[in-house]
Amino acid sequence: MTDYTDLAKRYLAAFNEPDEAARAAAVADLFTADATYVDPLAEVSGHDGIAGFLAAAREQLPGFEFRLDGAVDGHHRQARFRWVAGPAEVLDGAGAPPVVGFDVVVTDDSGRIRSVYGFLDAVPA
Amino acid sequence: MTDYTDLAKRYLAAFNEPDEAARAAAVADLFTADATYVDPLAEVSGHDGIAGFLAAAREQLPGFEFRLDGAVDGHHRQARFRWVAGPAEVLDGAGAPPVVGFDVVVTDDSGRIRSVYGFLDAVPA
Repeated sequence: MTDYTDLAKRYLAAFNEPDEAARAAAVADLFTADATYVDPLAEVSGHDGIAGFLAAAREQLPGFEFRLDGAVDGHHRQARFRWVAGPAEVLDGAGAPPVVGFDVVVTDDSGRIRSVYGFLDAVPA
Repeated sequence: MTDYTDLAKRYLAAFNEPDEAARAAAVADLFTADATYVDPLAEVSGHDGIAGFLAAAREQLPGFEFRLDGAVDGHHRQARFRWVAGPAEVLDGAGAPPVVGFDVVVTDDSGRIRSVYGFLDAVPA
C-alpha cells in the first residue's frame, strides 16, 4: 500500500531539486512513462514533459521552495494535498505564501503517479 | 468549453433523483461508458456500476439531499468542488452537515465525466 504522505513529499522534493539530472531521475522514479500533469497553467505528459515543466516552474519562481501544507489524504490509488511555494523566509514567516496549490495525484498499482490534477488557490499578483 | 458549475450541479442532481429510470438516464448522460468513480468507501465503473452506487448511497442515507457547497473550480478537463449531504432541514439550518465530500471530476473532450476522484471531509459518526 502506497504511503501517500511520502509520495507527496517526494513529489514536492522533485520541484525543489536544483540538479537537473537528479530532478530527471526523481521524475522517472515518481511518474509512469505516460503520466499526465495538468494544472491551470500547464498541461504536459511523459517524463520529459514533466521534467521540462518542473524546470520551467523553477525558472519562473526563482528561489521558491515547495512545501507540503497540512495532511495528505490518500485512499485506493488517489491522494489529495495542499502545498505552498515561496522564498524560505516567507514560508517560515507569518505572511501568506505567494503560491498555494492543491493537487490530486492518482497512482498505478505500483505506486507511481500516472496523473496529477492540479489546482491553484493563490498565485503571485 | 464545459460549464463545470452546471456539470457539478447535474452530477449532484443525479444523487438526488428519486426515480430509478431517470437516475440511470442522468448517469448515462453525465458519464462516459467506461467512467470510474472512486471514493474512500466505493470503487465502481461503467453506467451500471455508477447507477448502482448512487442507488446504494441513497439507500444508506435515506432522505438525504446532496448540495453543492461553494464554488466549482474548473479548467482544462478537470474540476474540483465541495458538496454536503444531509436532511434538507439540517442543510437549511445552522448545524454542521452530516456528510461533507470533495470531488475532482475529469471529463473527456465532449464534457462527459470519465473519472471521479472522491474524498470525504465528514461522515456520520
